[in-house]
Amino acid sequence: MTALANVRRRTGVDAAIAELRALLGDRLSTAAAVRESHGRDESYHAPKAPDAVAFPDSTEEVAAVVKICARHGAPMIPFGTGTSLEGHVAALEGGVSIDMGRMNRVPRVSVPDLDCTVEAGVTRKQLNAHIRDSGLFFPVDPGADASLGGMAATRASGTNAVRYGTMRENVLGLTVVLADGRIVKTGGRARKSAAGYDLTRLFVGSEGTLGVITEVTLKLHGIPEAMTAAVCAFPSIEAAVAAVILIIQSGIPVARIELLDATMMDAVNRYSKLSYPVQPTLFFEFHGTERGAVEQAEMVGAIASDHGGGDFRWAARPEDRTKLWQARHDAYYAALALRPGAKGWPTDVCVPISALAECIAETVADLRASKLLAPIVGHVGDGNFHLSFVIDPDDADELEAAKALNERMVTRALALGGTCTGEHGIGYGKLDFLAAEHGAAVAVMRQVKQALDPDNLMNPGKVLRV
Amino acid sequence: MTALANVRRRTGVDAAIAELRALLGDRLSTAAAVRESHGRDESYHAPKAPDAVAFPDSTEEVAAVVKICARHGAPMIPFGTGTSLEGHVAALEGGVSIDMGRMNRVPRVSVPDLDCTVEAGVTRKQLNAHIRDSGLFFPVDPGADASLGGMAATRASGTNAVRYGTMRENVLGLTVVLADGRIVKTGGRARKSAAGYDLTRLFVGSEGTLGVITEVTLKLHGIPEAMTAAVCAFPSIEAAVAAVILIIQSGIPVARIELLDATMMDAVNRYSKLSYPVQPTLFFEFHGTERGAVEQAEMVGAIASDHGGGDFRWAARPEDRTKLWQARHDAYYAALALRPGAKGWPTDVCVPISALAECIAETVADLRASKLLAPIVGHVGDGNFHLSFVIDPDDADELEAAKALNERMVTRALALGGTCTGEHGIGYGKLDFLAAEHGAAVAVMRQVKQALDPDNLMNPGKVLRV
Repeated sequence: MTALANVRRRTGVDAAIAELRALLGDRLSTAAAVRESHGRDESYHAPKAPDAVAFPDSTEEVAAVVKICARHGAPMIPFGTGTSLEGHVAALEGGVSIDMGRMNRVPRVSVPDLDCTVEAGVTRKQLNAHIRDSGLFFPVDPGADASLGGMAATRASGTNAVRYGTMRENVLGLTVVLADGRIVKTGGRARKSAAGYDLTRLFVGSEGTLGVITEVTLKLHGIPEAMTAAVCAFPSIEAAVAAVILIIQSGIPVARIELLDATMMDAVNRYSKLSYPVQPTLFFEFHGTERGAVEQAEMVGAIASDHGGGDFRWAARPEDRTKLWQARHDAYYAALALRPGAKGWPTDVCVPISALAECIAETVADLRASKLLAPIVGHVGDGNFHLSFVIDPDDADELEAAKALNERMVTRALALGGTCTGEHGIGYGKLDFLAAEHGAAVAVMRQVKQALDPDNLMNPGKVLRV
Repeated sequence: MTALANVRRRTGVDAAIAELRALLGDRLSTAAAVRESHGRDESYHAPKAPDAVAFPDSTEEVAAVVKICARHGAPMIPFGTGTSLEGHVAALEGGVSIDMGRMNRVPRVSVPDLDCTVEAGVTRKQLNAHIRDSGLFFPVDPGADASLGGMAATRASGTNAVRYGTMRENVLGLTVVLADGRIVKTGGRARKSAAGYDLTRLFVGSEGTLGVITEVTLKLHGIPEAMTAAVCAFPSIEAAVAAVILIIQSGIPVARIELLDATMMDAVNRYSKLSYPVQPTLFFEFHGTERGAVEQAEMVGAIASDHGGGDFRWAARPEDRTKLWQARHDAYYAALALRPGAKGWPTDVCVPISALAECIAETVADLRASKLLAPIVGHVGDGNFHLSFVIDPDDADELEAAKALNERMVTRALALGGTCTGEHGIGYGKLDFLAAEHGAAVAVMRQVKQALDPDNLMNPGKVLRV
């Protein structure tokens, strides 16, 4: 940005803040602590505080906020819970963070239709608590208790995606405030539709760069008659991954298949006070009828055993299952706890399942040749795995080594027909990888961006360089 | 279009045809019979022949065709098998039909990854024949043996969608030639990705208005260990639909649940030489392990019986299943055969499952109060059903009555939270209904269209008025 443009934007932001204060009163904050917490996510990426934080109460109020910002040329950064991992919420060009936390109502749950509509600030755990007695649940579960608007915006997934899909498959419709303040509803409640362009899927994964998601209509799923979980240790990562590939290829509808490497198992044992073998381990969950879940478990058990897997350690009681999965969800924090004072840098790739063993094995070899601490954990049923670098961000050499290893891992995944991120998104951390992956299609994404946000005010600097 | 613009376009089309002939030789046709067959689909909508038909051999050749047409301002209409149902292929503003039929190769099948890449002209039956010995199948099955490019372009679905999803869920990636001749690849082979805007889903369902789909990467599915089908008659449509709703709400993973009303059963019996009871009937298919398929069938049987369903007539042998489903797929032609010389006008809506009984019952009452012949058939597990008007297109009163009844049905579906089309698309037959359904979002669709096709040359007059 030129110096003059910078001054103009600065003046515009100040004018916008004055108007927003008149609109929102004390629901507009410029306090340093509030601003700082809104420019930072859970990644190692440099945070950047916005100039102000707005706390709107309704879609109409979001539209009013957006209109004020648009008129003054102030950048806008939608904010859910700040648990993203590629710098998504950093206010790279300043502007106004739009915190959706007050929009946390659940206006509608339809048990017969297995769907609901939530405001964007409702978190996944809040939704599941809300529908606890309905016989339904919402399956998408990134580690953090993220907001459903944020999860839609980042196309989040998690451990259940192998069976229940990601946000791409589970969002039926959206309410979105566009860059000029227009309110649009996309999609609907029908399970399928051939009516017009799929704007819902366009906004899902757009990371706040095309508009602010204010409401989300979601598929819900019936709580299965039977659910049971098990943990099984393997002699090597290769053996564990080979078992996973065969399970997927056999079409067994496993609800969860998670891989943790030995380092991560050690971290999880320490953090969650557990005593699993410190070996590469698969966590499974089976959903179905009583007979169906048993049948799945038997089939998986036979495959695991053929690949050197040890005995299944079962967690059949609900409280044991909860404990097991909470430990899995806390894996990132467990990894951080291995090295107090260090920062985490989680990164993920996803490849076709036939390439998973090769991609992980080469990444592990690369890691062993480095001095880096980076436990591996993965939603391996989807071909998706994560490295969580645990680094000293002030050590330039270490940071450089991690960057180089990450780049090699992404390059490897792309060469194997995969994607630079299975579920974390682009933010500003993976801009170059998006271009490497999608080539000429990035120009098409840019055309769409420019059509819907010609002044580049919606979360500028994320997903695409404009 | 003004008279002057019309002359300009006319001149441009002639110039384009001359250049295309130089490029393609006898793979460019202006023969009347060829042009006429390319301006007509299987619906009652008025056909309109293009000025010429191009038969490209490769993505690069499609790009060359598009560049020539774009330079001369000639409209382009992608053509698969011409089996669409809302006038999708009519050359409303003249121009060049791009017939993808020669692009019918299958460059890649990956059995371990359960995916494949096909050229756009490959039909669904051709693909399934190609992979017959692989243990895999492609489930999406609109009645016609449509091309996979056309199915992607219209977001097709069919009888298996309740379990396996529609083209929206089964397309992993696309190669698309844009309106300016650029070739882009969208998506990829990873099962999930959070990398950038979901261009794949943007082109799926765009009906050729944003570009020409030339290759499709598809998910495949393992052929289940056990498959069995059954037919069950009910005392009333209401009873059959009530059974369906309970089956879906119970989370039983039925592969197919199809409803045919008594009129349609009569038509199917006559056309396919069968002898089912002439009553509202559900067709079921169960996929799973041996034990799992039996368990599903038992659960469904109990629900059907509670709703007055008769005995299950089983079709366990593959040839019986094929016969049963071929009869179901031929239902549209069976309906037409009820009134020789008449034209078919199939229309569909889709509603949340809780509204399905009401929507069908009111539509049936409306039909009974009319003199129209319109058998009902539906993918009712998704809340999707079809009316197939069988009309004399030269009888203005009859046509008017069908139009009015269709409009009331769509209005009813929208009021119940549904969509104006579950799987047939907008074409030029449902332009007004798209606006009624999506309101302000249609303007967003138009912005996307204008960004990617500023001269409105890709299948103009379809999906959106520009």
